[in-house]
Amino acid sequence: MASSSTSNSPCAACKFLRRKCLPGCIFAPYFPPEEPQKFANVHKIFGASNVSKLLNEIMPHQREDAVNSLAYEAEARMKDPVYGCVGAISVLQRQVMRLQKELDATNADLMRFTSNDMSNSSFSVFPGQYGARMGHGGGSFDHNSGFSLPYASPWNNNPTGGSSEEGGDGTM
Amino acid sequence: MASSSTSNSPCAACKFLRRKCLPGCIFAPYFPPEEPQKFANVHKIFGASNVSKLLNEIMPHQREDAVNSLAYEAEARMKDPVYGCVGAISVLQRQVMRLQKELDATNADLMRFTSNDMSNSSFSVFPGQYGARMGHGGGSFDHNSGFSLPYASPWNNNPTGGSSEEGGDGTM
Repeated sequence: MASSSTSNSPCAACKFLRRKCLPGCIFAPYFPPEEPQKFANVHKIFGASNVSKLLNEIMPHQREDAVNSLAYEAEARMKDPVYGCVGAISVLQRQVMRLQKELDATNADLMRFTSNDMSNSSFSVFPGQYGARMGHGGGSFDHNSGFSLPYASPWNNNPTGGSSEEGGDGTM
Repeated sequence: MASSSTSNSPCAACKFLRRKCLPGCIFAPYFPPEEPQKFANVHKIFGASNVSKLLNEIMPHQREDAVNSLAYEAEARMKDPVYGCVGAISVLQRQVMRLQKELDATNADLMRFTSNDMSNSSFSVFPGQYGARMGHGGGSFDHNSGFSLPYASPWNNNPTGGSSEEGGDGTM
């Protein structure tokens, strides 16, 4: 929840920028004084002026989510100056592709069982029971998830990147 | 591949900033004159000065990937000012969780078949054949992929967001 802008102490943004925090400060509700690093990160990566412009261009009820997503991107960029949170997208795309491949293979095994054992198995199979799941997770699935990166996957270029797939960026 | 900085025409950055493009321009190899929008987007979201600082802080061989990831983030933020490419992370996390759930359920079905039919099936089962796949895609998997968002999933708040899961952001 956005903090109150009626606090006596200046917001983290005005304190960082060494300016008076006036009533109606665009930053105050989203950059409380007790979270100085949040504004410092966003300022370093995007710049206070760009963030102010962006907040003024969106609806007030969307500003808290916008600030939090900017803070997330800024922190990711500071931790990984080359790929930022685009690295996270690449890792997730690889997880999606790996899981889809495993699901397709498991469904194929299951289909072999059902076709082999449909007649003599003590396990009763309802028509479409597995086809339905296969249809959901299978053919109709977009393997690249609709997010195409403008360059080779970071983890193909970055020898340390592989470990991130196992959650190395978990603190991001 | 980064374009040559020895081109006669100024790079897209120097042209945009109305300055002379001198030899050794930090932007020239990554912002060719034929791609003016790439720099315009990055400048609008991050600011030329922040991008220049970032490029100077990383190794030359990493700069092209850094510029491309910045351009990707900038374009995503212009298309979705509230969530930017963090929205893509949220969509991918949901796909990973859905696929993992489907894989777990399919593996459970397969296990029921193997336990029911191991003895009387004409289909030969090799020990660990399915357990291995289950172990890979199953229990050891981190369901939140290690990327925790600092707020509720955008698509829970944004009524139009749901469609993006089916690749609505594919042009991003």
